[in-house]
Amino acid sequence: MKDMTDMIIPTYQDMLDAHERIAPHIRRTPVRTSDYLNELTGAQLFFKCENFQEPGAFKVRGATNAVFGLDDAQAAKGVATHSSGNHASCLSYAAMRRGIPCNVVMPRTAPQAKKDTVRRYGGQITECEPSTTSREETFAKVQAETGGDFVHPYNDPRVIAGQGTCSREFMEQTDGLDMMVAPIGGGGMISGTCLTLSTLAPEVEIIAAEPEQADDAYRSFKAGHIIADDAPKTIADGLLVPLKELTWHFVSNHVTDIFTASEDEIIDAMKLTWKHLRVVMEPSCAVPLAIILKNKERFAGKRVGVIITGGNVDLDTLPWIKGD
Amino acid sequence: MKDMTDMIIPTYQDMLDAHERIAPHIRRTPVRTSDYLNELTGAQLFFKCENFQEPGAFKVRGATNAVFGLDDAQAAKGVATHSSGNHASCLSYAAMRRGIPCNVVMPRTAPQAKKDTVRRYGGQITECEPSTTSREETFAKVQAETGGDFVHPYNDPRVIAGQGTCSREFMEQTDGLDMMVAPIGGGGMISGTCLTLSTLAPEVEIIAAEPEQADDAYRSFKAGHIIADDAPKTIADGLLVPLKELTWHFVSNHVTDIFTASEDEIIDAMKLTWKHLRVVMEPSCAVPLAIILKNKERFAGKRVGVIITGGNVDLDTLPWIKGD
Repeated sequence: MKDMTDMIIPTYQDMLDAHERIAPHIRRTPVRTSDYLNELTGAQLFFKCENFQEPGAFKVRGATNAVFGLDDAQAAKGVATHSSGNHASCLSYAAMRRGIPCNVVMPRTAPQAKKDTVRRYGGQITECEPSTTSREETFAKVQAETGGDFVHPYNDPRVIAGQGTCSREFMEQTDGLDMMVAPIGGGGMISGTCLTLSTLAPEVEIIAAEPEQADDAYRSFKAGHIIADDAPKTIADGLLVPLKELTWHFVSNHVTDIFTASEDEIIDAMKLTWKHLRVVMEPSCAVPLAIILKNKERFAGKRVGVIITGGNVDLDTLPWIKGD
Repeated sequence: MKDMTDMIIPTYQDMLDAHERIAPHIRRTPVRTSDYLNELTGAQLFFKCENFQEPGAFKVRGATNAVFGLDDAQAAKGVATHSSGNHASCLSYAAMRRGIPCNVVMPRTAPQAKKDTVRRYGGQITECEPSTTSREETFAKVQAETGGDFVHPYNDPRVIAGQGTCSREFMEQTDGLDMMVAPIGGGGMISGTCLTLSTLAPEVEIIAAEPEQADDAYRSFKAGHIIADDAPKTIADGLLVPLKELTWHFVSNHVTDIFTASEDEIIDAMKLTWKHLRVVMEPSCAVPLAIILKNKERFAGKRVGVIITGGNVDLDTLPWIKGD
């Protein structure tokens, strides 16, 4: 872990600047409610549908902030990242909107659909072997060749400031909240939430939701330092990555609690949401509802904001349907 | 067909009254767009998400208008209908909100999920055999016993006035439309759309979308009189019923065109919408996008409103996934 003095911690003003910068390029996503899910949980739930962003995930906020914050000289060289998930497509999308190059290093084993989406948004993919060594070597080479600005999926102050704009909208769209729940993987969304709410509404409890089978943030939180797992495995495949120093800063300072849910609980909550909210969302987004259902007494009678983080799902293989 | 003099044709004022009456009980559903679907079709598409109504369908508008328009004496006896679809659950939902009885006659072969939903909303189900004779006999008996006011799923002026409120909101939420496309079964939504737009925005073309395999409205439209099919079969199971005199009045006077789509085209459009709009919707709601994709030249460059009519889907058997 780097020394704190190395880190640039984004500020509330950075979040406000980010919001102004990205507003023309992102959607102010709607907030949905369900009487049925309220009755089931005993809480009053508000769901912010970031799955309705054009590229299907909240990550377009941070990516757009990074891309549109570049000066013209850097912008000409474009951006670069390594990711096989929503950050790759969201960064490509943002770069496409600015008309600059985006280079993405992806394991050759990444799903074809993910590669197709990146390419649809004009992203240039360089494939690596599915190992950390290969990814780092390949990425260093790509960056040296292109000079693209590295936009980390979450351990980047511009990205965290961008993600923080979601909670700002959410607070404007609801008449006060007691708690905010978001899934935690690398911690980008949770960090943005902490950044915004710690100034805007410090009375709101911030709860992170994590899969039992990838509970490194939970264990880090209990231990008081970052614990990174080696290759965790969960259906919530947006939540596999570990905390890094910047996100740990926010998690350790501002998160009230982290709760975990099992694979079955996640799948049940996912199906419940599809059925009653009628939105298509990823397994990762179901972890918050899963932990609310599992810890009802903690949420009962409260006004609870839930961030639905993304909606890019392989519709051919849904976890509750047994295939051939 | 009854003589025109028997019919009570709802007026624009009836729609305005309906909107005031139902506003506390329904959702003002959001309008969604997708850059991807715009590029694919060459049109500018706006989707009104009536699948986001609490009971999952636009039919809550008409049902609520009928239920809350009853005087207290009639209300005490409740309402009654025959339906195995969204009208049954939406009428039960509206009756529950007013605290009055709702009796529903349903074929004993109706899906268990549909029965469960009606019961969850306090509806009382009387089962009949899956034949028109049995349904009519059973319904007559139930109505005689309960005195419940018959609320037809679509051939009822209160219902059509209620459905018309959807287009009024839609016009408020968009900055002008050139066309409005909705699926057509019995014609309740299309009739409400005609009722509203023929006064509010007569320049908007009204297009109905119908499955090829249940194209009785299309053939009626071409023939100039109602043609009813005997037991059509399509995946768009919300569109199986025929036009009746009231809906025929609106369709024959105000609809510009009816287009049809094949089963495969409907399934493709359904999957496309789930993937890119990230909403859970019924096969019936995919018929509009299917006919737009099939007749691109007719819609290119136009601002087109599409009504997503319902989102009550059996998530265990999606049409593009082959089961065991």
